[in-house]
Amino acid sequence: MHSNLWLEEKFEDFLGLRFKVEKILFSGKSTFQTVDIVETKGHGKMLLNDGLVMVTERDEFAYHDMICHVPLFVHPDPKRVLIIGGGDGGTAREVIRHPSVSHCTMVEIDEMVVQACKAHIPQTASALDDPKINLIIGDGVKFVKETADKFDVIIVDSTDPIGPAQPLFGAAFYQDVYRCLSDDGIVVSQGESSWYAMSIQQSLLTVLNQVFPKCFLYSFSNLTYPGGLWSFTFATKKHHPIDDFNPQRVNENQLTFRYYNAGLHCAAFALPSFVKHDLAGLINNN
Amino acid sequence: MHSNLWLEEKFEDFLGLRFKVEKILFSGKSTFQTVDIVETKGHGKMLLNDGLVMVTERDEFAYHDMICHVPLFVHPDPKRVLIIGGGDGGTAREVIRHPSVSHCTMVEIDEMVVQACKAHIPQTASALDDPKINLIIGDGVKFVKETADKFDVIIVDSTDPIGPAQPLFGAAFYQDVYRCLSDDGIVVSQGESSWYAMSIQQSLLTVLNQVFPKCFLYSFSNLTYPGGLWSFTFATKKHHPIDDFNPQRVNENQLTFRYYNAGLHCAAFALPSFVKHDLAGLINNN
Repeated sequence: MHSNLWLEEKFEDFLGLRFKVEKILFSGKSTFQTVDIVETKGHGKMLLNDGLVMVTERDEFAYHDMICHVPLFVHPDPKRVLIIGGGDGGTAREVIRHPSVSHCTMVEIDEMVVQACKAHIPQTASALDDPKINLIIGDGVKFVKETADKFDVIIVDSTDPIGPAQPLFGAAFYQDVYRCLSDDGIVVSQGESSWYAMSIQQSLLTVLNQVFPKCFLYSFSNLTYPGGLWSFTFATKKHHPIDDFNPQRVNENQLTFRYYNAGLHCAAFALPSFVKHDLAGLINNN
Repeated sequence: MHSNLWLEEKFEDFLGLRFKVEKILFSGKSTFQTVDIVETKGHGKMLLNDGLVMVTERDEFAYHDMICHVPLFVHPDPKRVLIIGGGDGGTAREVIRHPSVSHCTMVEIDEMVVQACKAHIPQTASALDDPKINLIIGDGVKFVKETADKFDVIIVDSTDPIGPAQPLFGAAFYQDVYRCLSDDGIVVSQGESSWYAMSIQQSLLTVLNQVFPKCFLYSFSNLTYPGGLWSFTFATKKHHPIDDFNPQRVNENQLTFRYYNAGLHCAAFALPSFVKHDLAGLINNN
């Protein structure tokens, strides 16, 4: 059955990534987007929102390690963490591994993503049952506008700036994020591809620079996103992502990581020349 | 015409990369492989050998910067360089930019690749007319077995270890490479993808370790190869790729690079934890 079933993610009108599908596990349409989970050959289970690959079991650890452990090992004592988005649960899973974290609030707009992942991708979603996590189904933009809580680290684990995630790339949202951060807080955001989406990186960093004194970009390798070289933005009230990073804290802790390590933490902020050129004036990377 | 023409590179039986083709510029079959050059939408002109993407105008600078400038900025005074393969000319183009290089021998087995690239991809191939380059159409394996020349840096710019490039991944070849290197020589080789081709990396590094006292792996982002995170091996008689690297030499020289820079040089040797784990005992990276 489905012996020749493939899914294809198109990028603009000139690139397609095709993945062999063994089985369709879930297909739904929420208020916000289509949600599909498939069993692939070669990449394990895969979540797609609006037809775009979000997470695969094979490579999700790279994304989740880098969105989470970079800010949590820069902030000297992260206790309270807020995740906007991240419905698959992988980011929350990594956040609560840090012993200093006593509380993690996660605001995901689309309950269907959470439920589908809980049913079909426990590798990421099983963490969502942990008592440290306060999962709110709701609008992250509205949450940061209204909450009186303060967070040491905020992680914006969003989809692309189309559909429900669009306001998460705007100035009003980041002004509220700034207000919700503690005095030495850090916000890290999904930052797209330097190869294919430089104009989105420029636009997001322009917004961040209007609000935060220092902004950075760091990169990692994503196996299943178009462009491969993927990025996160790092905007900070106080702590510098390398000067204030203590590699000893990584090496001495009891956690092990399949992607992240202390050497890679610093290396991720060393960007190709074309990226530094195209983001000149918008990033404080060396 | 060809309004819906796409080419697809399959990886094993579970992944396909599709590129929109505007025009087929050249299609031939040499003694060794099929050779195609197409004009794509989004990636410029593209060379394919046996249906696999080798070079595109859009991202070739990343590959060529990293295969060339890493060893040439580690060796303190590279004068004589040997390239095995590299028929598109991009590696030779970068080698002869280094003022210290007085002589570059390039041994490419497939004349059709050279001629097709000269006719259709001058961005890489135009360098092959430079008088510093001694282009030999012939078998690189035979060349290193027979030559009495010595080289400071040897660059193995090969295709995958199938077809004509297979012997370039073997022990006999690297014993000859060792003999052809000066006493402080370095050999850098196309090293495949850590995500999808770990067993090839393990095999190549096992061979290199039988011959060289120190071996390393370094990585970069390739836009158009399956897996994105691509690698080169670095095997050295004497010079350490980071401890003996002087960033000042990069920053003070008159060359500009679209991908390579001094920070990225060191960062490229910081590998994800799963790569370090899978290559334990085979690499001397920190």
